[in-house]
Amino acid sequence: MSAQDSKRSGVQLKTPKGTRDWAGLDIILREDIFQTIGDIFKRHGGTPLDTPVFELNEILSNKYGEDSRLIYQLEDQGGELCSLRYDLTVPLARWLAMNTVQQIKRYHIAKVYRRDQPSMARGRLREFFQCDFDIAGEYDPMIPDSEIICLIIEVFEGLGLGKDITVKINHRKILDGLFAVAGVADHLIRPISSAVDKLDKSPWDEVKKEMEEKGLSSEVADKIGEYVKHSGGPELLKSLRSDAAIATNDKIKAGLDDMDLLFRYLGAFEVADKVSFDLSLARGLDYYTGLIFEVVFNAPKGASKDELSRVGSIAAGGRYDDLVGMFGKRQIPCVGVSFGVDRIFTVLKARHGAEKEKEASARKTDVYIMAFGGKTFDGLLLERMALARELWKAGIRTEFSPKVKPKLPQQFKAAESAGVPLAVILGEGELAAGQARLKVLGQADKDGVEKEGRLLAKADLVPEIKKYLGVV
Amino acid sequence: MSAQDSKRSGVQLKTPKGTRDWAGLDIILREDIFQTIGDIFKRHGGTPLDTPVFELNEILSNKYGEDSRLIYQLEDQGGELCSLRYDLTVPLARWLAMNTVQQIKRYHIAKVYRRDQPSMARGRLREFFQCDFDIAGEYDPMIPDSEIICLIIEVFEGLGLGKDITVKINHRKILDGLFAVAGVADHLIRPISSAVDKLDKSPWDEVKKEMEEKGLSSEVADKIGEYVKHSGGPELLKSLRSDAAIATNDKIKAGLDDMDLLFRYLGAFEVADKVSFDLSLARGLDYYTGLIFEVVFNAPKGASKDELSRVGSIAAGGRYDDLVGMFGKRQIPCVGVSFGVDRIFTVLKARHGAEKEKEASARKTDVYIMAFGGKTFDGLLLERMALARELWKAGIRTEFSPKVKPKLPQQFKAAESAGVPLAVILGEGELAAGQARLKVLGQADKDGVEKEGRLLAKADLVPEIKKYLGVV
Repeated sequence: MSAQDSKRSGVQLKTPKGTRDWAGLDIILREDIFQTIGDIFKRHGGTPLDTPVFELNEILSNKYGEDSRLIYQLEDQGGELCSLRYDLTVPLARWLAMNTVQQIKRYHIAKVYRRDQPSMARGRLREFFQCDFDIAGEYDPMIPDSEIICLIIEVFEGLGLGKDITVKINHRKILDGLFAVAGVADHLIRPISSAVDKLDKSPWDEVKKEMEEKGLSSEVADKIGEYVKHSGGPELLKSLRSDAAIATNDKIKAGLDDMDLLFRYLGAFEVADKVSFDLSLARGLDYYTGLIFEVVFNAPKGASKDELSRVGSIAAGGRYDDLVGMFGKRQIPCVGVSFGVDRIFTVLKARHGAEKEKEASARKTDVYIMAFGGKTFDGLLLERMALARELWKAGIRTEFSPKVKPKLPQQFKAAESAGVPLAVILGEGELAAGQARLKVLGQADKDGVEKEGRLLAKADLVPEIKKYLGVV
Repeated sequence: MSAQDSKRSGVQLKTPKGTRDWAGLDIILREDIFQTIGDIFKRHGGTPLDTPVFELNEILSNKYGEDSRLIYQLEDQGGELCSLRYDLTVPLARWLAMNTVQQIKRYHIAKVYRRDQPSMARGRLREFFQCDFDIAGEYDPMIPDSEIICLIIEVFEGLGLGKDITVKINHRKILDGLFAVAGVADHLIRPISSAVDKLDKSPWDEVKKEMEEKGLSSEVADKIGEYVKHSGGPELLKSLRSDAAIATNDKIKAGLDDMDLLFRYLGAFEVADKVSFDLSLARGLDYYTGLIFEVVFNAPKGASKDELSRVGSIAAGGRYDDLVGMFGKRQIPCVGVSFGVDRIFTVLKARHGAEKEKEASARKTDVYIMAFGGKTFDGLLLERMALARELWKAGIRTEFSPKVKPKLPQQFKAAESAGVPLAVILGEGELAAGQARLKVLGQADKDGVEKEGRLLAKADLVPEIKKYLGVV
């Protein structure tokens, strides 16, 4: 839009900051991702839940720690005060608190809203999709947690990214225990945890500075720095157990027991090699109480840390046993994961965009109905309409020229440029004899349908089209 | 939640006024409706478009006439001023104005927001779904309009409601012409149109009173009342043409020409008998310029007018040729329909809720993995996990008990109460021999799978399960 046009109408022609439209190839690719993820959610016994896009303010308050400032408020227009949902987890907890369900695996694919600084390049928007799967209810320890990790791996396998990702895991009890052992006062544990969470994006010096600003001594900060640099597999568990300074802390012991069980179960699921135990993983949100995890892309050879952190985590989650209880009615322990589809989309589009584009245009329409005739040709519009109705009724995706008297070459051009595989061609004489031509368009020429088009009785059109499309 | 609990947590445990959660049977039924409607949209060449849930305030302003007061504003938290979308039509027009597409059939299934007085009984909420299909671009007259009417009929046929509905149609040019002939001043035409729109819910006396309050004389109001009581089919077109007082009005003539064409095309689509030309249909929104329509349920025998108006219209739309142009960049004529899914849902749930409930519970899980053993039985959890992973990988919806050592009767109870059709039963001795039992649960007992369970080599499990499920 030119500046002049814009001035004339006085309207800024755009979507709000940090939001975008989804059309064409992008939305088709996105729907494919949802389909893959949704199928895997169902495979694991998931049932859908849909909650309103906004919640009462008091439902969202005290759930997100420092990130609460990113919540979108609705204007006070009289009546209740509401905010757009910040994630799908707190609405689930609110729903669990309101209802009597004791155990559920629920999934939810929907948009969430954060007034963050948007960055298209990093796939970070203010309106973006999350695909959530959560297991709520009392189960034997770490069984649902390990199923969630297994499901994460299956989702990325399903998206063709199984070899590209690592699931970083940690445990809030271990982390909080480490902070306590290092000398962090109770009331500082969440703020310090939130500082540690920035280690994947910021160098140690900056994180340390934030810790000091939040009230830690340089010495205590360094002790934490010593611990959180460790990552690895089950062997890290052993080395932590053998560290006398921390192994006596009750919280750490409970966390290590959970992690032992988890690695056993991940072994049974044959996914342990995709998982890295990373003591620097903290997760920003307040409500986690046990296992936490985050999925990152593996560094391609020669990639800089900066390039990697640009995409950031593409899925994350953890255990939150107290969140439902915060609503005052009942306690229900939960563990769940949230997939950040916009980032996954960015990666998949770069990889498969071109081939998807072809597929997308080829699958839109099955049949184009054309008409031709001599001097007295009236366009046969009513006849094209009647046939279209018949094909639509039979479930066949059908189009025809929106002109009363279209020219035959125009009709061919419209059909072929849209990648339509079949044409039905109506002529006055043939119609009078109860017949029409079925023709395969473009390069494709399958057995039984001749290149020039085959003259068929009108009654045979639908079965022949279905045969060609392979939907008999 | 008891009043005491509520007091303790200080949180009102509910969704905001006029919103609801969707779970269980309801969301499954709703997804089925979306599937049916979406398939028909695609059959007509529709491509998806998804726009943000909020728009810049200036995009929505001056589009909705009196209904603008129902728009939800976001709070001014710095930056742009935005509102939740009121419908899916204005966002489409904004998108068309921003892009270079000349012709498109686009569909959009999403939630919209109106601060109206909610009524659960009437299926009227503040957050509700619309399913929109619009045809944008220059076409020969009334061809896209008639396709939209045909699509509406197909959607209700697809939902099993083909015999229950009538499409009421009218034309803004005829209506505006009638107002002009009756003596309504230009600036009053839209407000008076909005008053006429209430005729399906309110008696003539009330509508007349509103007209008088808006500035009409009693005499002019009565003239309008005389015209808008007419409804019928093509014969009404003829009688209007023969009315000398109105047939000379240019707008009315243009509208009647459109309606003549429309009835011809609806005849070709064989849907004319579902359509009623109703001069009292006005539609509240400002932006319509041509054909307008509204789908209503037919009166069941003995139903009162009150009962019918309770459900109101279940789909509506029309032609809006100037809306895209309001954004100042280019003109693109459009016609489209919006299905109100919440009302359709209410009707279908009352009719088919019970049978759907059965279907829904039966289709959640394919296989339940169980374990049993003697005194030294350790629960075979790792073995159940390993097998679950194998079945998940094969696309089979699989669950197992989330207990380390579950009892066999508990496992059967869990599987059968969830309607799972198949069980795989693991025993230590059989596992050591590389075998497991496949058993058909409940009443179902198909050929080839014995009631007691069949002992199979582990390698045969996946193919046998797929064979049973019919997904080979």
